[in-house]
Amino acid sequence: MSTAIINISSLVTNDPSLGEGPLGLIQDAAVVIDDDRIAWVGGTSKAPATDNAVDAGGRAALPGFVDSHSHLVFAGDRTAEFNARMSGQSYSAGGIRTTVAATRAATDEELEANLLRYLREGLRQGTTTLETKSGYGLTTRDEARALRIAAAHTEEVTYLGAHIVAPEFADDPAGYVELVTGGMLDACAPHARWVDVFCEKGAFDGDQARTILEAGRARGLTPRVHANQLGHGPGVQLAVELGAASADHCTHLTDADVDALAQGGTVATLLPGAEFSTRAQWPDARRLLDAGVTVALSTDCNPGSSFTSSVPFCIALAVRDMGMTPDEAVWSATAGGAAALRRSDIGRLAPGTRADLLLLDAPSHVHLAYRPGVPLVSAVWQRGVRAL
Amino acid sequence: MSTAIINISSLVTNDPSLGEGPLGLIQDAAVVIDDDRIAWVGGTSKAPATDNAVDAGGRAALPGFVDSHSHLVFAGDRTAEFNARMSGQSYSAGGIRTTVAATRAATDEELEANLLRYLREGLRQGTTTLETKSGYGLTTRDEARALRIAAAHTEEVTYLGAHIVAPEFADDPAGYVELVTGGMLDACAPHARWVDVFCEKGAFDGDQARTILEAGRARGLTPRVHANQLGHGPGVQLAVELGAASADHCTHLTDADVDALAQGGTVATLLPGAEFSTRAQWPDARRLLDAGVTVALSTDCNPGSSFTSSVPFCIALAVRDMGMTPDEAVWSATAGGAAALRRSDIGRLAPGTRADLLLLDAPSHVHLAYRPGVPLVSAVWQRGVRAL
Ligand SMILES: [Zn+2]
Ligand SMILES: [Zn+2]
Repeated sequence: MSTAIINISSLVTNDPSLGEGPLGLIQDAAVVIDDDRIAWVGGTSKAPATDNAVDAGGRAALPGFVDSHSHLVFAGDRTAEFNARMSGQSYSAGGIRTTVAATRAATDEELEANLLRYLREGLRQGTTTLETKSGYGLTTRDEARALRIAAAHTEEVTYLGAHIVAPEFADDPAGYVELVTGGMLDACAPHARWVDVFCEKGAFDGDQARTILEAGRARGLTPRVHANQLGHGPGVQLAVELGAASADHCTHLTDADVDALAQGGTVATLLPGAEFSTRAQWPDARRLLDAGVTVALSTDCNPGSSFTSSVPFCIALAVRDMGMTPDEAVWSATAGGAAALRRSDIGRLAPGTRADLLLLDAPSHVHLAYRPGVPLVSAVWQRGVRAL
Repeated sequence: MSTAIINISSLVTNDPSLGEGPLGLIQDAAVVIDDDRIAWVGGTSKAPATDNAVDAGGRAALPGFVDSHSHLVFAGDRTAEFNARMSGQSYSAGGIRTTVAATRAATDEELEANLLRYLREGLRQGTTTLETKSGYGLTTRDEARALRIAAAHTEEVTYLGAHIVAPEFADDPAGYVELVTGGMLDACAPHARWVDVFCEKGAFDGDQARTILEAGRARGLTPRVHANQLGHGPGVQLAVELGAASADHCTHLTDADVDALAQGGTVATLLPGAEFSTRAQWPDARRLLDAGVTVALSTDCNPGSSFTSSVPFCIALAVRDMGMTPDEAVWSATAGGAAALRRSDIGRLAPGTRADLLLLDAPSHVHLAYRPGVPLVSAVWQRGVRAL
């Protein structure tokens, strides 16, 4: 059963061999979907015959967003903490610990319902692939069940037992690293594709991070690293050295960090929702792009520091405040996210790729930055199935 | 025919006599709609019997947004200009003149269809009252038809013949002021409630602005002023002196400007979408609020400098970058907008006010800032009719 989407005003393929420039843009385009795959892309006038046709009516189309960094297996809410921070009031916030307590206390069903809610919310905004993590359980049981629940709904699951040191191990961080690399890893590895660590002052230092990532790698998990968000540190260079798929945040970088990313195979994933919601300094995407680094753009969706599930919002911020052009930001939120997940079957629209794509209520992908905050996504196909 | 909306987790009434604090918050609330008016608000357990009931299911409710500043009678698109500006490329942009040429060339039907599109787009995002202006015609015929088209779809229509000096009068600005206060005003006054002028270097100076606003006032139009957006100038103090309902933008203010606003009856309407999309300095809402000025928050939706129709996006920016608390920003986008339009029947939910209200897919209005970019508006009533 094949479907043609015709009369697309402007199509982002992210395949330079298929169209103009790095986005492989095709004007007045059509896309043919066969089952769950893209069968053909090109000009509307040359589209092959299909069983069905959908008239895009002059709307723009692009690959579904690949949101390669989120934290969505959680329970509870931190509205009061956010409100106090933004109102300049003091608040004895438990921070991540508040979410850990609520997550541990939640049933499997509650955690799953919450995850599904945010997956649907993302899908309505064009996110067709979403990575998500554990990290609010911090016990063997709670980390493993978070990953099990996540794995039932997404292929991209990350073991983040090393989010913070579990409260029970406050006086014995070495003991917690032992757990994270021992029994907890045994229970978690079967459910995850990736291992991650929050390498930052107050969380895990370079040596601890190395131990955790190497242990994960020995169990078949590929590293990704929360690196250099709150200050300079060893995270980025460690990520490159260990062959991590991505170093995430990259807000505070030395020239040596930028060089390492440019020369290595690690993607820099920027998460402007976090800087927006904590009023922090913006990551400098322009510096990374000019150095030749591959940049991804993602939401970091979580209830503490970045409670947005909106990739379009992140695109608008990246263009306004991080020195990205609209084209670069759209690439980073699609092909860039795919690179950060080492995937070539998503983030691109070419024969054989997964039929994950969206239509915008706009004539061009540039409107994602030109019309900030406006919900422009008006149709979504996920694996060839119309999801919106 | 009465309808009760029950099980509202948290209701913003903007009536301090009905609930807690300046927002008049009621927890576990209900609202009763009778025809196009609010008949009752209070706790769910005390709600009177009604013909129908809608279960809000723990969602938050608030008055519909009052977007008191937009420019939506236009044709054409300025994507290429925006893209070039954000990509650091030079572009021989015609600026407003591009839109003027496209608007003049458009048919009435095209202009009306475009306006309706953005009205619907705003409504989906919770805007139940939208002010809009002429200002892309700049001939007697084109200004009058813009206002006629706007007046068919909104009560809040503003005559902005003095947006820029019409290209035909480039060498004779005094002649254009004569037209704007003469024949053009004659043709426009019957269709408008407000008269506005862009008082800024390169547009109209203080003397010209005074002449135009006084001429409008003499024809029964109440002044509002585009003031102090790009630099210091006489706009704000002129607005207060002439009893304008609102001084809009207020980005560059002296202490004397702030004092004038605090002592006068003119609302300061802040338009952060413009600063976002032009990478300009933020207006300082905190300074105004601390001085006792009434502040409104609006989109300035227009294809040149602020192509967002999203009041929630403006709320998130105001909290992040302009020193407003979430409560203040929500008040300014509802009751503040109503004050800028000198309306007491909207922006508030109390017996007798218009039944314009919305439900959020969230337990609290704070989520409008806590969850930036996420389309949270999940139900809208406009004059008592379910519109979403
Ligand atoms: Zn994270
Ligand atoms: Zn304006």
